[in-house]
Amino acid sequence: MKKIVVIHGPNINLTGKREPGTYGKDSFEAINQEIVAYAKTLGLECTIYQSNHEGAIIDRLHQCMGTCDGIVLNAGAYTHYSYAIRDAIAAISLPCVEVHMSNIHKREEFRHISVIAPVCAGQICGFGKHSYLLGVAALKQILG
Amino acid sequence: MKKIVVIHGPNINLTGKREPGTYGKDSFEAINQEIVAYAKTLGLECTIYQSNHEGAIIDRLHQCMGTCDGIVLNAGAYTHYSYAIRDAIAAISLPCVEVHMSNIHKREEFRHISVIAPVCAGQICGFGKHSYLLGVAALKQILG
Amino acid sequence: MKKIVVIHGPNINLTGKREPGTYGKDSFEAINQEIVAYAKTLGLECTIYQSNHEGAIIDRLHQCMGTCDGIVLNAGAYTHYSYAIRDAIAAISLPCVEVHMSNIHKREEFRHISVIAPVCAGQICGFGKHSYLLGVAALKQILG
Amino acid sequence: MKKIVVIHGPNINLTGKREPGTYGKDSFEAINQEIVAYAKTLGLECTIYQSNHEGAIIDRLHQCMGTCDGIVLNAGAYTHYSYAIRDAIAAISLPCVEVHMSNIHKREEFRHISVIAPVCAGQICGFGKHSYLLGVAALKQILG
Amino acid sequence: MKKIVVIHGPNINLTGKREPGTYGKDSFEAINQEIVAYAKTLGLECTIYQSNHEGAIIDRLHQCMGTCDGIVLNAGAYTHYSYAIRDAIAAISLPCVEVHMSNIHKREEFRHISVIAPVCAGQICGFGKHSYLLGVAALKQILG
Amino acid sequence: MKKIVVIHGPNINLTGKREPGTYGKDSFEAINQEIVAYAKTLGLECTIYQSNHEGAIIDRLHQCMGTCDGIVLNAGAYTHYSYAIRDAIAAISLPCVEVHMSNIHKREEFRHISVIAPVCAGQICGFGKHSYLLGVAALKQILG
Amino acid sequence: MKKIVVIHGPNINLTGKREPGTYGKDSFEAINQEIVAYAKTLGLECTIYQSNHEGAIIDRLHQCMGTCDGIVLNAGAYTHYSYAIRDAIAAISLPCVEVHMSNIHKREEFRHISVIAPVCAGQICGFGKHSYLLGVAALKQILG
Amino acid sequence: MKKIVVIHGPNINLTGKREPGTYGKDSFEAINQEIVAYAKTLGLECTIYQSNHEGAIIDRLHQCMGTCDGIVLNAGAYTHYSYAIRDAIAAISLPCVEVHMSNIHKREEFRHISVIAPVCAGQICGFGKHSYLLGVAALKQILG
Amino acid sequence: MKKIVVIHGPNINLTGKREPGTYGKDSFEAINQEIVAYAKTLGLECTIYQSNHEGAIIDRLHQCMGTCDGIVLNAGAYTHYSYAIRDAIAAISLPCVEVHMSNIHKREEFRHISVIAPVCAGQICGFGKHSYLLGVAALKQILG
Amino acid sequence: MKKIVVIHGPNINLTGKREPGTYGKDSFEAINQEIVAYAKTLGLECTIYQSNHEGAIIDRLHQCMGTCDGIVLNAGAYTHYSYAIRDAIAAISLPCVEVHMSNIHKREEFRHISVIAPVCAGQICGFGKHSYLLGVAALKQILG
Amino acid sequence: MKKIVVIHGPNINLTGKREPGTYGKDSFEAINQEIVAYAKTLGLECTIYQSNHEGAIIDRLHQCMGTCDGIVLNAGAYTHYSYAIRDAIAAISLPCVEVHMSNIHKREEFRHISVIAPVCAGQICGFGKHSYLLGVAALKQILG
Amino acid sequence: MKKIVVIHGPNINLTGKREPGTYGKDSFEAINQEIVAYAKTLGLECTIYQSNHEGAIIDRLHQCMGTCDGIVLNAGAYTHYSYAIRDAIAAISLPCVEVHMSNIHKREEFRHISVIAPVCAGQICGFGKHSYLLGVAALKQILG
Repeated sequence: MKKIVVIHGPNINLTGKREPGTYGKDSFEAINQEIVAYAKTLGLECTIYQSNHEGAIIDRLHQCMGTCDGIVLNAGAYTHYSYAIRDAIAAISLPCVEVHMSNIHKREEFRHISVIAPVCAGQICGFGKHSYLLGVAALKQILG
Repeated sequence: MKKIVVIHGPNINLTGKREPGTYGKDSFEAINQEIVAYAKTLGLECTIYQSNHEGAIIDRLHQCMGTCDGIVLNAGAYTHYSYAIRDAIAAISLPCVEVHMSNIHKREEFRHISVIAPVCAGQICGFGKHSYLLGVAALKQILG
Repeated sequence: MKKIVVIHGPNINLTGKREPGTYGKDSFEAINQEIVAYAKTLGLECTIYQSNHEGAIIDRLHQCMGTCDGIVLNAGAYTHYSYAIRDAIAAISLPCVEVHMSNIHKREEFRHISVIAPVCAGQICGFGKHSYLLGVAALKQILG
Repeated sequence: MKKIVVIHGPNINLTGKREPGTYGKDSFEAINQEIVAYAKTLGLECTIYQSNHEGAIIDRLHQCMGTCDGIVLNAGAYTHYSYAIRDAIAAISLPCVEVHMSNIHKREEFRHISVIAPVCAGQICGFGKHSYLLGVAALKQILG
Repeated sequence: MKKIVVIHGPNINLTGKREPGTYGKDSFEAINQEIVAYAKTLGLECTIYQSNHEGAIIDRLHQCMGTCDGIVLNAGAYTHYSYAIRDAIAAISLPCVEVHMSNIHKREEFRHISVIAPVCAGQICGFGKHSYLLGVAALKQILG
Repeated sequence: MKKIVVIHGPNINLTGKREPGTYGKDSFEAINQEIVAYAKTLGLECTIYQSNHEGAIIDRLHQCMGTCDGIVLNAGAYTHYSYAIRDAIAAISLPCVEVHMSNIHKREEFRHISVIAPVCAGQICGFGKHSYLLGVAALKQILG
Repeated sequence: MKKIVVIHGPNINLTGKREPGTYGKDSFEAINQEIVAYAKTLGLECTIYQSNHEGAIIDRLHQCMGTCDGIVLNAGAYTHYSYAIRDAIAAISLPCVEVHMSNIHKREEFRHISVIAPVCAGQICGFGKHSYLLGVAALKQILG
Repeated sequence: MKKIVVIHGPNINLTGKREPGTYGKDSFEAINQEIVAYAKTLGLECTIYQSNHEGAIIDRLHQCMGTCDGIVLNAGAYTHYSYAIRDAIAAISLPCVEVHMSNIHKREEFRHISVIAPVCAGQICGFGKHSYLLGVAALKQILG
Repeated sequence: MKKIVVIHGPNINLTGKREPGTYGKDSFEAINQEIVAYAKTLGLECTIYQSNHEGAIIDRLHQCMGTCDGIVLNAGAYTHYSYAIRDAIAAISLPCVEVHMSNIHKREEFRHISVIAPVCAGQICGFGKHSYLLGVAALKQILG
Repeated sequence: MKKIVVIHGPNINLTGKREPGTYGKDSFEAINQEIVAYAKTLGLECTIYQSNHEGAIIDRLHQCMGTCDGIVLNAGAYTHYSYAIRDAIAAISLPCVEVHMSNIHKREEFRHISVIAPVCAGQICGFGKHSYLLGVAALKQILG
Repeated sequence: MKKIVVIHGPNINLTGKREPGTYGKDSFEAINQEIVAYAKTLGLECTIYQSNHEGAIIDRLHQCMGTCDGIVLNAGAYTHYSYAIRDAIAAISLPCVEVHMSNIHKREEFRHISVIAPVCAGQICGFGKHSYLLGVAALKQILG
Repeated sequence: MKKIVVIHGPNINLTGKREPGTYGKDSFEAINQEIVAYAKTLGLECTIYQSNHEGAIIDRLHQCMGTCDGIVLNAGAYTHYSYAIRDAIAAISLPCVEVHMSNIHKREEFRHISVIAPVCAGQICGFGKHSYLLGVAALKQILG
């Protein structure tokens, strides 16, 4: 059974409590349970991680080397400026699917650019919690 | 049974014959069959359309009004400059999922910006033919 | 009796069905009838043309050479990037009045620039269907 | 009988004496008489004001509150940088039609941008003195 | 007793009548009385000046030389382009506190840049009429 | 009694030891005591927090939900690029007053733009330690 | 005998009737005859195609796959924005020589950039109808 | 005897009192006397005008039509944004020499661009009060 | 017999020794012989000049006045910044054909702009040594 | 004996495991040993620190005050956007030598700009692990 | 008697033969004689130097150290990009007056910026050969 | 024994005489002697070359082919715009270490970009004459 990690970046722990018009009403815990359950149906063992700390996300990405087969990453606002996370993804050489709950391309201009996209397999955004599920499905395809 | 249309933009008809490193080896026809079959498993009747003509894509989008429930659109290179297609999507008020086979955010800079994204529900890119299947799944979620 | 052509670009055929807050509630057909009738009161024989195809608009502009005396053009979204339509207007050497139903200068930034303006006599925008009538009046003045 | 004010900005008082290739040969006074007369035919009482002073134009706009129903404004070169005039138009909440004798979109690049356009109903430019007459007609439509 | 001048720029005289959502409901006169009274509690004699004229604001700033100890300035829209006012502030060598009723950094992009900031002691914005009171308090600290 | 939190970002703990020409000579501890004492005079219970870690600042902002009524934030250099802190402020829906000891608008160009300003109530900068006191006073006004 | 196609883009069919100062006085038909005749002298069978439709040019490029050995393309104004034509050239993997009758690098700034150049063998511009003949000669060299 | 006008823009009346390191120690009156005296030695009758009001400078320029032969203009900070003054200079068709006491090209970046330069005969800057004298000498050459 | 000069700019003397993938394998001497021979077949007497010195190229261009009828110029990297060479070409008023061995429009971005193009008759690039031969042929057409 | 600290930023702990083509094959530990040994030969006591956390790097820089004489810093990707680290370096007033293993000026454009360079003594990049050794040697020179 | 050098940059040796509309009809030699004669009337011994070589101009500037008191420099097109000449002027610490025969601020945009201006005393442009004479007069003032 | 060449660009010959605050007090000759001596200690035979002429530097670089093993280059101000020197370095295929005495990244913005960096092994700047010695040491490492 292949192993994947879903990494949530800053402020995503507030999902459900935060701007429900943009991010939906489901609680963070409920979404994580749904992700893990869905991954299981695809034959994937899924671990969840969240941090508001850029450095902690980098540490967790490093830890993936040799312990998992792929990553679904919602880097939150770090998406738009964290070249350090970008370098971490490139360094670990594991397939990484970039996801966002909102459609970042229809929001403020600074959200249109993802500095991590050039080192990710693909990007899925705009489908609320389903972005994660679609991300897991996409990663499943890549892992074969 | 809900109806959806998958619209392919310019040069996508050459898929399988064109730069297989970027776009994969499956033929255009085979991909379309796979999309239709997958949509069926989700309870969606799926029609396929392809054109290299910006105006024809606009005409086809107009025709969707009152005849289908949602759209999966790979506008090809028109993604990056066709404000006319953008206006067509906005005009018809149907949910539209933007897909791309390649990860447009890791290619040439001009491909990083989608002028149609602000009027689409979400964007999926980078997963080859699976981008279409994921797009159909995403549309299914939106249509409920 | 002088002859003029009113050319409508992409998506304008949906007027009345499309975003009425921006483009008004009158149907496309009704607006055209009003234009033709108004032109008549000014002693102008007015033909209407609409297409969503950039190339078809260029073809129609070419056809104006020797068959009409002036043009009222609402190029829709092509206004903002169609250098090919711009070249067509320059090539045919007929007076062309640029019109827009919405005030393009108060909408999204990409709509602030008209690439066809440098080859048009003048621009009228923001008055809904009346932009066309004012455009016909302006063309009347130019044709003398 | 509705009341309107036509406000002319800097250097427009020289019309007729100044670059006739760009601004026409009619004298400033003659144009004003023609505007007033034309407004009358539309059932509008029209007052004329001109100043080269940005502050005086703002003062005059403020004075319009409660004393007239709409404005036709040719802000001259202030069009391109006077955010103070823009704020004045927004503050008084009266319909304002922006006009220019020359087609500002085919002249120097700095003239392509109107900072007052986002607070005006619409824009008419390029028809010499007729821009004013068309502006009065447009305002008539707005005032109903 | 130290003397200060509060200078209001263009359109601020309409406060209370103008876009109350942005600028509050208190009348211009009431705000001025409140400012003068508050200054008094801090041991400052406060004079009020308002003009819509850039040149008049410059004249008033010049007049401050030798007649007052510091300035609270809300330059209104001139904030964003009046290098002449900036030069006047630099020329008179008196402490100047820049204030704005609205938070200029969350409004249109052109309002994010203050060309007078580099010659002012500090900036206070976003607190409605209280921006002035805070500005007076800040100036008090500077004057010692 | 309402509760507020004053959050200091990176390097501010060195105040008094660091570039006194820019940031003043008072020690960080002394300033904090002065802030707390001043808040008390306004009937506000004030807690102080400082961290050099972007993630820790986000964590602390989250912790404010339900435990305080408003925030005075000097995000230090994070002001200019931390979209993650911006998102945290937006997520917690509490009034936040942005302060800076130096006038950021007269320093290096990168300091002229605050990415957190669009989600803050207002901005106060340039008055040394008094920026904090003015910020507390401004927050008092907002909290009523 | 090798086969080549010369493709003319929008408005080029008006050559001879359109701005002779820029594009010369020879008729479109005469130029085409001269091109075909010259190609023959180099041992090349040359077909001519013209369209004002971006989509039609793409269709024609696709049709070249397996039916000709190389292309001389004057994409007209599409040169400057048609990423769809660019993708078509890249997709068909045939040598393509870009030509322009005028020297695009000494005209308006928007004509200085060719978005198709990165997928063409080379560029020839500025020599009127001779640009085509030189393009055919260049293609002959490439085809060997 | 030919007549010229020397026009000083905003803040120049403070010369001698204002930043002597940049603008010199001579009083404004003394400089004007020196200019008039020098002009006389060249056979020119010289009038001096100063205003801090953009509109007043425009009015004064208009007044030059038919009353003088040429202008020496130091538009102060208006140099960098007053398209209205630019239009006034163009409108009156008199030779205008642009002068600045400081070398505007070595100061802040916004001072490097003169929007009035394109309608002036030439520019002289950096020589303190001598810039005026050199400007008068240059105008003498132009007037012949 | 008309006379032409082929001028090679910096580093072109290393052709054959330098990056053969970009510039081909033929030696510089061999290419020059081929150029001279080809020119002869067109009835042109051709002189070759090469220098790595911008000033020497300008000197040589000056020397062309009155001694030759036209120029084929490959300015090498000077193409992208030597406004001095541009001015020299403009000054001598002789037809100049710009050539490049590589397709400068598909290389690094700085090579996409030719500052000399606006003063040259046309541009030919991308055909290796054949760019020179095509340039000679183009010049022949211009010289008639 | 003078004391120095070598600080490694994000992802540098993976050196040897990560993209060896860019960063070399030596392990992170081996490089550190080599640095310490080399420093010793120069009479410098060298401590090593690494963190992926921006805040931790700032904390460590603060800790340098009074405990060491200089710093060799490879801030990794934080180099390109961490104004907070920049402020920390400026705050502590110790000589800091910026080093990078790769030549950042020949990689992606975002790596060409170092926001910390303006507060560092100098920069050394492109020599793999030797960049550190050269950095220590440079710091030795500065410390005297 | 003070000594000055007038240095002419590229293409200026063609004055009189080159674009007389821009640069006047007087021959280069005649202008130089006039300059020397005029300098003499001001008590200045004037040497003339011209070169098309950037390096030679730098060499000549170096040679000025200790051999002359000031420089009048028309750097021609090098004005707009030669940071090497700029550094030379800064290095020699002699007053340098920048002159141009044409008004560079009303020509092509690239001529609006002088990279040498920040190290020159002042700039004079637009007065044909008189720019040199005015430059000599300005230098006389500086030398006292 | 390996051979290296140290090439100094424009104005560096004035070192010791020129802005000692930026470039140090050691004479150019003394620095060169120190470089040669230091190289010798590393087993490298070192030749020195200096020129203010861009073309001469290119010539010297060409001459390095086959006569030396590596280059230390301080291109002076040419660093920032000489694409011709960049091409020369690329053409000769020898390792080149870029050095600068000052830290170019903390000076004027134009000095932050090195156009030669993309073809150099690495960059060392900010250490005065020691930049050269460090450059020689770095080159030694590359040559092995």
